[in-house]
Amino acid sequence: MDMLLANKIENVKENIKNWKKEGLTIGLVPTMGALHKGHMSLIKKAKETADKVVVSIFVNPIQFGPNEDFEKYPRTLESDVNICQSLGVDIIFAPAPNEMYGENTLLSNNNLTYVCPPYNVVDMLCGKSRPGHFDGVATVVLKLFNIVQPDFAFFGQKDAQQLFILKKMVKDLNINIKIIGCPIVREKDGLAISSRNIYLSEAERKKALSISQALNKIEQLYKQGISSVDILFDTAVSILDKDIDLEYLEFINYDTFIRTQKAEKNTLVAIAARVGNTRLIDNIIL
Amino acid sequence: MDMLLANKIENVKENIKNWKKEGLTIGLVPTMGALHKGHMSLIKKAKETADKVVVSIFVNPIQFGPNEDFEKYPRTLESDVNICQSLGVDIIFAPAPNEMYGENTLLSNNNLTYVCPPYNVVDMLCGKSRPGHFDGVATVVLKLFNIVQPDFAFFGQKDAQQLFILKKMVKDLNINIKIIGCPIVREKDGLAISSRNIYLSEAERKKALSISQALNKIEQLYKQGISSVDILFDTAVSILDKDIDLEYLEFINYDTFIRTQKAEKNTLVAIAARVGNTRLIDNIIL
Repeated sequence: MDMLLANKIENVKENIKNWKKEGLTIGLVPTMGALHKGHMSLIKKAKETADKVVVSIFVNPIQFGPNEDFEKYPRTLESDVNICQSLGVDIIFAPAPNEMYGENTLLSNNNLTYVCPPYNVVDMLCGKSRPGHFDGVATVVLKLFNIVQPDFAFFGQKDAQQLFILKKMVKDLNINIKIIGCPIVREKDGLAISSRNIYLSEAERKKALSISQALNKIEQLYKQGISSVDILFDTAVSILDKDIDLEYLEFINYDTFIRTQKAEKNTLVAIAARVGNTRLIDNIIL
Repeated sequence: MDMLLANKIENVKENIKNWKKEGLTIGLVPTMGALHKGHMSLIKKAKETADKVVVSIFVNPIQFGPNEDFEKYPRTLESDVNICQSLGVDIIFAPAPNEMYGENTLLSNNNLTYVCPPYNVVDMLCGKSRPGHFDGVATVVLKLFNIVQPDFAFFGQKDAQQLFILKKMVKDLNINIKIIGCPIVREKDGLAISSRNIYLSEAERKKALSISQALNKIEQLYKQGISSVDILFDTAVSILDKDIDLEYLEFINYDTFIRTQKAEKNTLVAIAARVGNTRLIDNIIL
């Protein structure tokens, strides 16, 4: 079966309409492109779950802050297309910003309708250092949901806060879509796979490894019966490479998204750190 | 055909699912109940336009400010049911707040995902004196859209700012629903029909009439060639009963929702005023 590379919303909708008429189920994998093994695992899961699979590739301007890497963010459409084709994707939806937000639109909440996730969940972890980021994510994801009208949407557990926020959005806004979270995919040595890993120099790449090592240590100690967040935190920090700039290392109840002082089942341990100029995130769920 | 009075989301969805399977179109008329001739005109339009008509009746707590009339807002379910039945409505969806927002949920943007219309449009007219109001409206309307999945949704032109905001929401979030605005329905003497008119004493009712009279005067002068907003404003104000407390009288380009100094085609002339303790709104489009 041929794969369609669509830039226009109407083109996607037309195909979706026909699939719906035939009673086929649809899986959506929203991405910003620069596809890697993490995305591939989402696409494979989507292929297992739904009759038709749409992968969106859109570097979404409204989820980047003014000093973030929107311009620099890797764009590798040709390689992305090859990956999608090899995995049997039915449609790649790769719109230009104008197609998503209209021409000459000032991209701000002065001029556009936004979806705003709960402030208590947003004002933590990545949201704290990236104001407006999750409003931008929730808004574009809802737009993609309305365009593609999937039965299932697939997101990586690596962006644990994003996954929580999108599940909450679906619940709060009565959206008829099942969100499926997929496990973090790692390099052989444990580094969580990320499109931003390509920014790392060889030396930084080695230092970055201490992030997943710190999380592993926490898991190991937790399994040995240590539940004090203070102890787990200090041990983890001692493992981090001394050149790594820790942004946060937090223990969160993953049902409520409230900070906890006691590690227990379903505690999210989430970390963000800068290695050189590159910001990396990783997490485990106990 | 029998009418269904549904309190539960699942009950509505089940019926909608069956209608969709049969290929029937669905019209939604979102209301807060206390149905009057204005609502009836929306329902009649919905009956003409769609195969099946759902009327929602929900006094939405999150669109009322802390000092507004949420508790006092008229609730007249029995009469509403009779009206809907007489007009051939297929489903009344009348959920309790818990059904819409979950039990024990703190109704705030700290805890819930909100839809936030553009600040430039919200921070004017009614939005200026009712902070958070249109976020609450947009949020509940999107929830109703996702529950009922209508092809068409019907709103009164009386809430002109609301109508603009909802059309903008549909566009900005790629919602697959056509919003149909319906003309203001008036009493014989010209007073715009509103659920809040029942708050008016007989004396206030007479004074309130000067609101539509002021708008009529503007329209008359505009047709005579007067386009200066200053002149139109002053004339209108001179017609308003002296006991009426004017909140705003604004001239807005209804394409862009930007204030204008020159009345022209598609200028919205919108007024809000207090008569005694009752806040009334009215408008015309030139």
